[in-house]
Amino acid sequence: MIGQQYLLLPGPTPIPERVQQAMNRPMINHRGPEFRDILLEVNRGVKSIYGTDHNLLIYPSSGTGALEASIVNFISPGDKVLAISIGVFGDRFASIAQNFGAQVEKLSFKWGQGADPNVVREAISKDKEKRIKAVVVTHNETSTGTYNDIKAIKEAMQDHPALLMVDCVSGLGALEFQMDAWGVDVALSGSQKAFMIPPGLGFMAFSDRALKIHGQNNNHRFYWDVTEGLKYLEKGQTAFTPAISLFYGLQEALSMMLAEGVDNIIKRHLRYRNMVRSAIRAMGMDLLAAEEQASTAVTAVLAPGGAGANQIRSRMLNRFNIVVAGGQQELDDVMFRLGHLGYVRELDLLAVIAALEIVMLESGFKVELGAGVNQAQKFMLRAED
Amino acid sequence: MIGQQYLLLPGPTPIPERVQQAMNRPMINHRGPEFRDILLEVNRGVKSIYGTDHNLLIYPSSGTGALEASIVNFISPGDKVLAISIGVFGDRFASIAQNFGAQVEKLSFKWGQGADPNVVREAISKDKEKRIKAVVVTHNETSTGTYNDIKAIKEAMQDHPALLMVDCVSGLGALEFQMDAWGVDVALSGSQKAFMIPPGLGFMAFSDRALKIHGQNNNHRFYWDVTEGLKYLEKGQTAFTPAISLFYGLQEALSMMLAEGVDNIIKRHLRYRNMVRSAIRAMGMDLLAAEEQASTAVTAVLAPGGAGANQIRSRMLNRFNIVVAGGQQELDDVMFRLGHLGYVRELDLLAVIAALEIVMLESGFKVELGAGVNQAQKFMLRAED
Repeated sequence: MIGQQYLLLPGPTPIPERVQQAMNRPMINHRGPEFRDILLEVNRGVKSIYGTDHNLLIYPSSGTGALEASIVNFISPGDKVLAISIGVFGDRFASIAQNFGAQVEKLSFKWGQGADPNVVREAISKDKEKRIKAVVVTHNETSTGTYNDIKAIKEAMQDHPALLMVDCVSGLGALEFQMDAWGVDVALSGSQKAFMIPPGLGFMAFSDRALKIHGQNNNHRFYWDVTEGLKYLEKGQTAFTPAISLFYGLQEALSMMLAEGVDNIIKRHLRYRNMVRSAIRAMGMDLLAAEEQASTAVTAVLAPGGAGANQIRSRMLNRFNIVVAGGQQELDDVMFRLGHLGYVRELDLLAVIAALEIVMLESGFKVELGAGVNQAQKFMLRAED
Repeated sequence: MIGQQYLLLPGPTPIPERVQQAMNRPMINHRGPEFRDILLEVNRGVKSIYGTDHNLLIYPSSGTGALEASIVNFISPGDKVLAISIGVFGDRFASIAQNFGAQVEKLSFKWGQGADPNVVREAISKDKEKRIKAVVVTHNETSTGTYNDIKAIKEAMQDHPALLMVDCVSGLGALEFQMDAWGVDVALSGSQKAFMIPPGLGFMAFSDRALKIHGQNNNHRFYWDVTEGLKYLEKGQTAFTPAISLFYGLQEALSMMLAEGVDNIIKRHLRYRNMVRSAIRAMGMDLLAAEEQASTAVTAVLAPGGAGANQIRSRMLNRFNIVVAGGQQELDDVMFRLGHLGYVRELDLLAVIAALEIVMLESGFKVELGAGVNQAQKFMLRAED
């Protein structure tokens, strides 16, 4: 098929040309002054996206690696952990804690909804002896296209001393997040989402309070060890060989992000979400996520009649070279997910909506041709800021 | 300074233009058929470099991550481990085992020498009750420019059932290694050495015997878990988001490596080593590694008089834009290390030798201008195959 693929996944996302070019620079000594300058610059940049003045380490890893890093550094075997889950990635965070010896109490919410802060408040209030050492929660749950209100969850914790540890892998840079202002202790992210670079870098930001707790932590670890990481960072190095080409990309992507401004990026993602959701609705299709908790990074669309999402996906691919994600686990074939995260153009989304109308019509569903496109256009007309 | 830097590190190594170009391809769905084809192709390719028909997993990680993967999958807390160390990376392997609860007995050898198989034989023979579960050892020790005779070490283990786990991070593809033929159970490597791509991929090859032992293993793990990794590999996927751009590079680099032929690559590295060592000697300088155990990936050169290596390094950098590595830990300033690994041209090495002569002369050492270059040229003249 002619032309580049439309990649509408909740990560990896398309790479800007500038970022691609930057990654072509030749290798350098990762223990030399040139790499030190890059490392310190991107460290500052990523911290500003997090909204934190505290600590940040960058690992050669996927986002899941960063989740593991948070558990092995801040949770000791036997520690009680309250795990809030609204989907696959919430379950994953709980599983990692469990695998490393934590006593996990899981608060699961219906897929497609965000966690209810009142339920969290209740669970926290029951812990009179303050035995819970950490609350772990997902910021943006890509498996369901739903997000959690992290600020409200922190408030629901009241004065409980448990660490608040947040999986921001797909949310950071696409959805409001203010680490220090909200009082988050540990926040994880990765390179292949709003940061617009290929997968392979994991980020872990952590507060000084978390660092103090790390000092008494006795979990098994080596690769993810924060003490070693910070010792090397002080010298302008990473403990182990960094993924140099991805650092080049991150440096360039950050300069684009800081030029656009974090607030503007968040607003842009909010516009994408609202535009896509209203267009899908105008086509007569249903959405999994509730309105107030719908992700700005990915929209989960239910297949009419409760099945056939994978056929829609393969028609989108074969007919138009558009890649959208499927449903995971129990939502396989029930829905597909449309990513609108990172380096995505408004007009690409319009084209995808138009293609979806054609595919739905050809699949025998009653769709009024142009209904979604029209709605999206109106959105573009209105949403000027 | 005009022109590209001469990067003579024991990793990262220069990236071939073809590989660089390959990494510019747009992102794809890592759970789709296109990535599956790449994954299966590079899996076959990397296994052929290892000389194994068994299992291989590729992680988004540095080489140290792959070392950790081997420990958490094949060593249980309390297991006795015999750790053979001839330098920094041997010590690191031992430390990882220790951090994850192993009872480590360390056999350390003088830096600059390979492990004596007789000493290994003795240690193994003492273990009448076969309590040692694994022997861990470095293939090529970059910190000293020395390698271990893995085949002889395996023979020294006689019929002891301990797993033989080898850190091949810098050795694989630069130095002979035959995983299956030698009876190695677990072998780790990384992308930024003989594979000529940027850092960020860790490789773990393991035998079916190791996999069986993994079945009873109870160490803490999630990210590195072999069961999960193999489950996804069967579907043509990785358990967690792979470093896609590095896979593109690996695919291209492997096609270059397989076209040159593993045996020819090993011979080429052997020629580089012999040429560099004879040139350095002709300049009147001493080498750390003993002749029979000298690395084909990196040559450790002692600074005349026992100090001043860092000044030589900074003159090489400032005068000629040549980056060579320093000595690590107790060898800091005592020596420098000249990498000749991966995508390095013979004439680059000649130029570096010429530059070193000038730097040494300007630093006040008695060096006959041309002595090293002449020796290297003679080598090129002779070594035709």
